[in-house]
Amino acid sequence: MVYAAVLGYGTVGSGVVEILERNREIIKKRVGEEIKVKYVLDLRDFEGQPVQELIVHDFDLILKDDDVKIIAESMGGLNPAYSFVKKALESGKSVTTSNKELVAAYGAELIKTAKANGANFLFEASVGGGIPILRSLNQCLTADEITQISGILNGTTNYMLTKMTDEGLEYDDVLKQAQSMGYAEKDPTNDVEGYDSCRKTAILASIITGKRVDYEDIYTEGITNISKTDIEYAKKLGGKIKLLACAEKTDNGVWARVCPVITNKKNPLSTVDDVFNSVLVEGNMVDKVMFYGRGAGKLPTASAVVSDIIDEAKNLGSDITFGWQEDKLDILSIDDISVSKLIRVEYNDKAKAKDAVMRIFGDVAVTELEEDNGEFAFISPKQTERNVNKKINSLLNEDGISNVLGAIRAEN
Amino acid sequence: MVYAAVLGYGTVGSGVVEILERNREIIKKRVGEEIKVKYVLDLRDFEGQPVQELIVHDFDLILKDDDVKIIAESMGGLNPAYSFVKKALESGKSVTTSNKELVAAYGAELIKTAKANGANFLFEASVGGGIPILRSLNQCLTADEITQISGILNGTTNYMLTKMTDEGLEYDDVLKQAQSMGYAEKDPTNDVEGYDSCRKTAILASIITGKRVDYEDIYTEGITNISKTDIEYAKKLGGKIKLLACAEKTDNGVWARVCPVITNKKNPLSTVDDVFNSVLVEGNMVDKVMFYGRGAGKLPTASAVVSDIIDEAKNLGSDITFGWQEDKLDILSIDDISVSKLIRVEYNDKAKAKDAVMRIFGDVAVTELEEDNGEFAFISPKQTERNVNKKINSLLNEDGISNVLGAIRAEN
Repeated sequence: MVYAAVLGYGTVGSGVVEILERNREIIKKRVGEEIKVKYVLDLRDFEGQPVQELIVHDFDLILKDDDVKIIAESMGGLNPAYSFVKKALESGKSVTTSNKELVAAYGAELIKTAKANGANFLFEASVGGGIPILRSLNQCLTADEITQISGILNGTTNYMLTKMTDEGLEYDDVLKQAQSMGYAEKDPTNDVEGYDSCRKTAILASIITGKRVDYEDIYTEGITNISKTDIEYAKKLGGKIKLLACAEKTDNGVWARVCPVITNKKNPLSTVDDVFNSVLVEGNMVDKVMFYGRGAGKLPTASAVVSDIIDEAKNLGSDITFGWQEDKLDILSIDDISVSKLIRVEYNDKAKAKDAVMRIFGDVAVTELEEDNGEFAFISPKQTERNVNKKINSLLNEDGISNVLGAIRAEN
Repeated sequence: MVYAAVLGYGTVGSGVVEILERNREIIKKRVGEEIKVKYVLDLRDFEGQPVQELIVHDFDLILKDDDVKIIAESMGGLNPAYSFVKKALESGKSVTTSNKELVAAYGAELIKTAKANGANFLFEASVGGGIPILRSLNQCLTADEITQISGILNGTTNYMLTKMTDEGLEYDDVLKQAQSMGYAEKDPTNDVEGYDSCRKTAILASIITGKRVDYEDIYTEGITNISKTDIEYAKKLGGKIKLLACAEKTDNGVWARVCPVITNKKNPLSTVDDVFNSVLVEGNMVDKVMFYGRGAGKLPTASAVVSDIIDEAKNLGSDITFGWQEDKLDILSIDDISVSKLIRVEYNDKAKAKDAVMRIFGDVAVTELEEDNGEFAFISPKQTERNVNKKINSLLNEDGISNVLGAIRAEN
């Protein structure tokens, strides 16, 4: 019998308890021993529910119980999650967490603490929910140098962009819908501003580089400025707007970014709709491999946590923690990265405006929507962010142009 | 230093040698030791090429060299692959193979031989080429009972069906094109009749059930009868024809099948085009997870072989072989499985023909193509293969109907 404790009986925590119960026999067969939850830490008592008898309110009780070898942290947030996880690892208990905020902020330190104390620290559920992306990177695609990762890492925003695309709705209306369906929180900032994707990108970038990529360094732009008109242009160009997370190793260094991108049909990520998540991995030998599944939700996320618990139970005393070093990796400035952008030009003199665009950006193809809305758009040739932004600014001084809108990055 | 030998210096074998050379440093870091190819078994000499000095023509030389701990079999076919692999395992050497024919025919026996001799037998590359599907099933999705697997497991046929769909071409023309591009072999039987997919399905079905599923038992239908007109109907219905491999656990038993299916847009497999492969896995907790990538090609396939070599090098002396038992699993007859089919009806009296269809199949929606081609089609309501085939036969006796064509399975 291997004893475990679950910290936090919310969506994920209750899912972990449920899976360990419902799939007990298969899991026992895979581990060689039964895994039993001895404690569930929560502020609430859950009176009358079966979990009641496992509930404790004091973390020290768990910490001091030598029977407990594995702790699943699913409280979320940095405090007290960080101090609980740290103490658990220091006392030699293995930990798994679904908490991307914790992993993005303290991953390297906790990895080191685990290794120093004969414990393991795993966090499969912190990126991509039920998609086994971290384990695939570390245990499956081992013959390759991973050169690039891109993905749709946030289900809420993907659901919203899919709705905007399929139903021609405005951002605000879709947000309300997503909130009423429970896909978006009352305060949606974390999702819609890209902060959630940013933390997951930091974790992926750290894994493929082996060094600490700080999430604060990753250029992050959410979807709050995406309008119905942007979506219409994307459609007209045969693409879809997706909130893409990217990290790439280049000869000059590593760059990482979270922002809306007009993906084209050739990119398999463009087919990933609704609340689904997906990660496209590029290796120097295997070429492209994509992983797709539910990035959130009780049982899919808990499935990933339980797969960590199983690995830890099978490897008590041996080091299977993977991750990255504490030394920080300085990533490239977004200004130096080459991009194309969809640039929308509001004109008061169409001919003059087009003329200015051609003069500044070269011979680009102009796109107009069906209804005459006093603007046209074009995709800029690939060049550094710095250059394209400079040129966008100079457009504003041109005769015939009243405003320049949008500027969403676009795949070629 | 861990010494390996490669059997067969064809596409995959030469890729294995190339990856071990090009990614030597990363691989050394991951294993903790360098992996070195000591022998390459081939009938040819490769005079003047760097591989020449590794070439041997006699397998016994490899077998008797105690330095060689790992053998990568990439000769293909059953003989002499089977006897070489068997002998290698019996002498305690670990083996990895990309040979689905070998694994489908002798997998259970070779798994047992490996375990009995302290060796490992891995075969990641035998299904899905570079996609790490077997390892994901065994090492990643461990919290789940896998209930269903469906996939596009053959790149040649997927390329052909994609071309037929995108360019409105007939089967014969597309086959010629695929042959000229090297995607299809001169004798394409193995791919186009579904035999290749069938063997891969047997491997996947054996893994998710833990018992031996014989490939001979799996109902297999290729794409040779798919016509331009079938594709047009599929398009009109908003679907795509894909050669789908399926295996599912039900309360009554396990069924498995390889056949063309009209997939609908909600199925993520419908977005997998060209030579790409993809496997959709359904677990009882994680819901749907999809894996996508290159199912063939030198480096992607070799990448999977090398990931096996790495695992074997890291685990010399410990048992990491996963697979299935030798006892055979009797699968359900295809006749008992529920399906919908696209049924094309050639008529000499349209009204009478429609009337007969409604009488026999109930109130179904009829689809007609733009040009009047003397036929209409409909999707039958879901019922057993036995029933739907019986009804199709009875259609042939009806007034107004001159022929019944097609009958491709369709998703609801």
